[in-house]
Amino acid sequence: MINVAVNGYGVIGRRIADVVLLQPDMKLAGITKVRPDYKANSAFRKGYKIYGTDEKSRKTLSDAGIAVKGVIKDLVSEADVVVDASPEEAGSQNISLYKQLSKKAVFQGGEEQDIAGLSFVAQCNYERALGRQFVRVVSCNTTGLCRVLHSLDENFGVSKANVVIARRATDPDDSSKGPIDSIVLDPATVPSHHGPDVNSVLPNIPIVTMAFKVPTTHMHLHSLMISTREHTTRDKVIETLERTNRVMLVDGKGGFKSTSNIIDLAREMGRPRNDIYESVIWRDSVSVIDNEVYLFMAIHQEAIVTPENIDAIRALVGETGKSESMDTTNKTLGIRT
Amino acid sequence: MINVAVNGYGVIGRRIADVVLLQPDMKLAGITKVRPDYKANSAFRKGYKIYGTDEKSRKTLSDAGIAVKGVIKDLVSEADVVVDASPEEAGSQNISLYKQLSKKAVFQGGEEQDIAGLSFVAQCNYERALGRQFVRVVSCNTTGLCRVLHSLDENFGVSKANVVIARRATDPDDSSKGPIDSIVLDPATVPSHHGPDVNSVLPNIPIVTMAFKVPTTHMHLHSLMISTREHTTRDKVIETLERTNRVMLVDGKGGFKSTSNIIDLAREMGRPRNDIYESVIWRDSVSVIDNEVYLFMAIHQEAIVTPENIDAIRALVGETGKSESMDTTNKTLGIRT
Repeated sequence: MINVAVNGYGVIGRRIADVVLLQPDMKLAGITKVRPDYKANSAFRKGYKIYGTDEKSRKTLSDAGIAVKGVIKDLVSEADVVVDASPEEAGSQNISLYKQLSKKAVFQGGEEQDIAGLSFVAQCNYERALGRQFVRVVSCNTTGLCRVLHSLDENFGVSKANVVIARRATDPDDSSKGPIDSIVLDPATVPSHHGPDVNSVLPNIPIVTMAFKVPTTHMHLHSLMISTREHTTRDKVIETLERTNRVMLVDGKGGFKSTSNIIDLAREMGRPRNDIYESVIWRDSVSVIDNEVYLFMAIHQEAIVTPENIDAIRALVGETGKSESMDTTNKTLGIRT
Repeated sequence: MINVAVNGYGVIGRRIADVVLLQPDMKLAGITKVRPDYKANSAFRKGYKIYGTDEKSRKTLSDAGIAVKGVIKDLVSEADVVVDASPEEAGSQNISLYKQLSKKAVFQGGEEQDIAGLSFVAQCNYERALGRQFVRVVSCNTTGLCRVLHSLDENFGVSKANVVIARRATDPDDSSKGPIDSIVLDPATVPSHHGPDVNSVLPNIPIVTMAFKVPTTHMHLHSLMISTREHTTRDKVIETLERTNRVMLVDGKGGFKSTSNIIDLAREMGRPRNDIYESVIWRDSVSVIDNEVYLFMAIHQEAIVTPENIDAIRALVGETGKSESMDTTNKTLGIRT
């Protein structure tokens, strides 16, 4: 059994902790928390072992009646692999602890590209992560794009990808951020960071991305315009996407008019926290015009990297092959293949 | 003096009526209204001659204390040119009255493309409208795109344009529509109607558009990706846009982070109703990567067709040349050239 520590219990950490427990080859060493909020209480009620991120947070948690097992160093010492789901760019401080204790660790997309020496999307480069000490799961948008671009590239050759990303403003639990009633360029310059981030996984695909924020909490929306080396057709693209791992196709005519319909589907499916792990593509939108492929894709920013984190853990341990790991992850998460 | 009737006093009609009065060569015959709402009262207080759209609305307005001069037929009879700013697709019913009374008329972009036999954007095809009986000013998005694509095509040759349009959900005065907290594909299929509509003005530019609605009332946001026949540079594109009529460049560094900053600029400028008549382009966003031009553009959906309507009136009358008309319109509306 792989003993997994989850450092950080926010948007990603909460999901990883729950999903680790669904894996037949993993157990959860524990999680870290800073504050005794409802998320800490929820973890406590689930019976998770809770550690403070430092002595101060250990005391704060303890004073609030939450049994604390120790601090982060105690947790990491016990684990085989740490999933670092700490706040953006905190991973670069934590890495020295993992190095000191000779532990393997999975970082998230909010960290610098070079923190781990390898950016990871399971179906694109699982093998390259085998046995490594560190790996960085890329961000939600990059993960979603890599799955689709990698598949189209393998099948038709991608000579150029332009992608416009309408980003959700913030997550549903965050009432502190905007915008309201405004579209915010993010950034005003071209390209946004997403294109170069895709290239950290798929270095040979020329890609330019433009991004802006819109007032919604439900999913990012990508508009893809892809030139292929090989002539293709709408039917061939759809057939390729249908057999691409962790890609789900939906139909406008089937009631999927918007990003909120996708999240509503997750609720109907009984998915935990409404999670959509798949890159969601509107079948209606898939078009081939003058040798360019057009499509709309939605990305659930909170959930899509969950399966990648699980596969990354197995890749680091190095005892499970790509297909076996992805199949197990898919099966335990209810991802249809 | 050109005697102008404005049929409809909604988003566009209100603006046209006010702006007709600023023209040295025009006078306002009157406007039509259906209901005695605050807009009718505002027109009444401004001293505009008000006509019912039919006998019923004449009575309703009159009963509410608004002096009514007659019905639509009386108004049209008096006018030289009618600006049909009636609700979407009502123009196709009104056209028989204009024909019966042998009047010239300007229709809006909500009508069928072929209603008038010519789709109009002043700087693209003013001359073709000279002396015609009817013309159709195209929609806000099409108007904004045509200005920019026409200019880039004249200067560098546009071999292909891909445009992603993030549409504002509805106008600021409309509390009945959504979406809230959702991105709605509009439509889920590709292309949206905007590309073909651009081709009704500029038939030789290959263009594909994708569109969706986002929860904001302030402006549409366009992401343009344009391939040019001639090699170009960022500086050349910016220099071209700077001398393109009715295009305004803004800078992210100057505080323009979002569409709502543009509307706030209009308020600072003292523009009536916060109106932005120009296609607004972020200078920061203008990039040339691998022979493609990238840029972000914002379109004030309520206001951008105002100058086009005024020029269309003059073109139909046929006594004023393109430059003279556009210069007069720009000067009276405060559009810098």
